[in-house]
Amino acid sequence: MSENCIFCGIVAGAIPSTRVAETDRAIAFMDINPGTPGHLLVVPREHSTDLREAAPEDLTAATLLAQSLVSRVIDRLDADGANLLSCIGAEAWQSVFHTHLHVIPRYKDDPLQLPWHPTPGDLEEINATAAKLT
Amino acid sequence: MSENCIFCGIVAGAIPSTRVAETDRAIAFMDINPGTPGHLLVVPREHSTDLREAAPEDLTAATLLAQSLVSRVIDRLDADGANLLSCIGAEAWQSVFHTHLHVIPRYKDDPLQLPWHPTPGDLEEINATAAKLT
Repeated sequence: MSENCIFCGIVAGAIPSTRVAETDRAIAFMDINPGTPGHLLVVPREHSTDLREAAPEDLTAATLLAQSLVSRVIDRLDADGANLLSCIGAEAWQSVFHTHLHVIPRYKDDPLQLPWHPTPGDLEEINATAAKLT
Repeated sequence: MSENCIFCGIVAGAIPSTRVAETDRAIAFMDINPGTPGHLLVVPREHSTDLREAAPEDLTAATLLAQSLVSRVIDRLDADGANLLSCIGAEAWQSVFHTHLHVIPRYKDDPLQLPWHPTPGDLEEINATAAKLT
């Protein structure tokens, strides 16, 4: 655990989040600034600054959890596809320096472009979406 | 191997590519329509339509190869970061239906936005960049 790391706080439960899935090495929770409805973040429990530094078993666990969630958002949210994205470094749009994978559901003709401009989503909507994913 | 799949053809060597790394389960080669200089694709050797259908051991192999290449592009191309991206479904910008991970080097103030509009890169430049990565 790294002090002052928001995702370490979420892993520890000290910072609230809407968790939708977890394994012994990784957790998945809703992004509160969703690019599209159902946007999830998958993080290894163990702290690392970015994907380069993640232990292979942690990166593998996060990736396989993300893989299952890609299927889940398509099946349960009627999404038409999804993007898996990781940002390594501020120049690559990383803003929280704890390794994470974005799972971004995609919908026909949605307007998503990257970089997106994070704006807070409606928490009730986010929680209602999370309920479909748990 | 899936007939008429360009990435299966590249894996088999029947379609030319500039390969920069390989393992028993995955290969990495240069994207000929690079979003930024050094743009790589990592694909499992085994065919699957998209990440959902990839066997866990193939997705793991591709991810760990991509992880090593993220470090390599940053170290050898003086990139300032990188994005790891997978597109699942046409609505998510997938255009080749064989599971693949993009490793996109990022440079301070580069103009990359997604979706990018694939345009052929200069093959000499691509090959010169590949030589730094092998």
